[in-house]
Amino acid sequence: MSVPKRKIAVLSPVAWRTPPRQYGAWETVAGNIAEGLVARGWDVTLFATGDSVTRARLHAVVERGYEEDRAIDPKVAEYLHIPEAFEHAAEFDLIHSHYDFMALAYTRLVKTPVLTTIHGFSSPQIMPVYEKYRDGYFVSVSNSDRAPGLYYVATVYNGIDLSLYPLQEHPGGDLVFLGRIHPDKGVHLAIEVALQSGLPLLIAGIVQDPAYFREQVEPHLNEKIRYIGAVDVAGKNELFARARALLHLNTIPERFGLVLAEANAAGVPVIAMDHGSCREVIENGQTGFLVNSVREAVEVLPAISRIDRKLCRQRVQRCFSIGTMVESYEQVYQTIFDREAERKS
Amino acid sequence: MSVPKRKIAVLSPVAWRTPPRQYGAWETVAGNIAEGLVARGWDVTLFATGDSVTRARLHAVVERGYEEDRAIDPKVAEYLHIPEAFEHAAEFDLIHSHYDFMALAYTRLVKTPVLTTIHGFSSPQIMPVYEKYRDGYFVSVSNSDRAPGLYYVATVYNGIDLSLYPLQEHPGGDLVFLGRIHPDKGVHLAIEVALQSGLPLLIAGIVQDPAYFREQVEPHLNEKIRYIGAVDVAGKNELFARARALLHLNTIPERFGLVLAEANAAGVPVIAMDHGSCREVIENGQTGFLVNSVREAVEVLPAISRIDRKLCRQRVQRCFSIGTMVESYEQVYQTIFDREAERKS
Repeated sequence: MSVPKRKIAVLSPVAWRTPPRQYGAWETVAGNIAEGLVARGWDVTLFATGDSVTRARLHAVVERGYEEDRAIDPKVAEYLHIPEAFEHAAEFDLIHSHYDFMALAYTRLVKTPVLTTIHGFSSPQIMPVYEKYRDGYFVSVSNSDRAPGLYYVATVYNGIDLSLYPLQEHPGGDLVFLGRIHPDKGVHLAIEVALQSGLPLLIAGIVQDPAYFREQVEPHLNEKIRYIGAVDVAGKNELFARARALLHLNTIPERFGLVLAEANAAGVPVIAMDHGSCREVIENGQTGFLVNSVREAVEVLPAISRIDRKLCRQRVQRCFSIGTMVESYEQVYQTIFDREAERKS
Repeated sequence: MSVPKRKIAVLSPVAWRTPPRQYGAWETVAGNIAEGLVARGWDVTLFATGDSVTRARLHAVVERGYEEDRAIDPKVAEYLHIPEAFEHAAEFDLIHSHYDFMALAYTRLVKTPVLTTIHGFSSPQIMPVYEKYRDGYFVSVSNSDRAPGLYYVATVYNGIDLSLYPLQEHPGGDLVFLGRIHPDKGVHLAIEVALQSGLPLLIAGIVQDPAYFREQVEPHLNEKIRYIGAVDVAGKNELFARARALLHLNTIPERFGLVLAEANAAGVPVIAMDHGSCREVIENGQTGFLVNSVREAVEVLPAISRIDRKLCRQRVQRCFSIGTMVESYEQVYQTIFDREAERKS
């Protein structure tokens, strides 16, 4: 390849270990980028928690994720971790930040170019920070999750490690929900599909909204609708082995939807709400179905058996693998290096 | 004076306006320093909220204090405001930060020296950030409020604007509590003194701990023990006019205790718990009494009338005026300029 191997700092969040043990989409993707770059010969330093697992050089000043160790103050962890990367900026050709608007605050104080992958805008209140630093370098994780006015170098879809999710050739009998237990993720809609179709439903994920869990999930739990808690990779594969389909009836626009790619990698078709990025991740009729209501979700269930599970995995391999993602980032880096060289000349 | 007039950036918090309308000790002191430096001919830029009032050059990117306008997200305000000062670092000979550990995170990314006045350590959890940046320049606001291992250039007592608090020559009949309604400030102990002595008590300040107010303050309110809400400067002077003495029975070490100096400026003697900096601000038997219990506070009440109110004000003039404070800071700045010159030579 034509891109010279340069020194890259990957700045991962410190909410969770990189890669996370269970939940933690941003750390998953930051970790996958670091591993993918190392595999392709880049000199990579990963700024992440001290217990992170990586083939890159690990640079850590916060020992454990603040979501995993309540003795750690999130704000203090943030103010130790983020500047650490920028204090070492001169050692790198590029800093690739996954740390939202907080890392932007340091970008004008260093000469090294900074690329920010925006994993999602958490609230409209944070937009003034993005607007201030709009002339930075940004990547969106889907075409649908873009804010006007920012300089986007490209959309780069998230890539997953397909070796973690082997193909489950034979469909299981259950519907599966996998994600945060939060109204945004539509657990209550998945339950409604289970009730209307009479099919069993397995629900897995961290409870992010306890009131929602108590009021809209727990009352429906029984032998056919079960909540099994948070799951790690092994737990996800057990779920995928039992899955007839993954239900992802998100109520707000999805930014990317890592779990959709993971399910498809395992050959599991996805029934997703046609909201945000879902239509970019799921090919309607090929790797699942895009729906607009609970009724439509129930209606497509009989057609699920016609989905070719191998094709699902092949599409993930093509579009959402670490290799594909890292190749795209290599192009983004090259664009940035070229622009920086222009600026200096 | 021998100090050459150089360009100083004063970085004030943006919780409240500078100076604050009511509560806001850090913004009060940062503002007083800016005004005092301007009065002595320095070229001062104040980084503060857009509605701040100053004779310095005001530089603002956050329009109002996040405690005064709930539409403003504190974290977003912080990430807009603090880096703004550091992005302009090259325009200044010194940045004088009042923004706690958060501003430290930027200090190694600029060449301009940064002085941090530590207005108090909010929790042991923040200490790792101070430890990381321990070789910076620090000022403590009292000798008692120091952390080991930091490079303290000096202790500089906070200075107040004495013109705001005219001498009340004649003592009033009331006991007065003025401060945050929070267990740290011992409102319940002031109430106990009022109950035991039979003297009326006026309580003023923002309710920072609503449960504490509900459980330990409100049940005691009646015609003799009254809560009058938060007060501005005019309100404080009305309180001081009615004051026999100020009760400041703090339950944790005081860091400085601006209100002690304000009361003394108005000629009001202070009965303070001998905890932290109180013995540095109050001269026992001269400007008030240092006590160790409610019983001792009640016992000294008859002696209050022997305190010379004019002497109280004179001591504030000498030790806790803006002029005295700014002269001390000028010496601190000179120490820093000398050390920086040494480093470069």
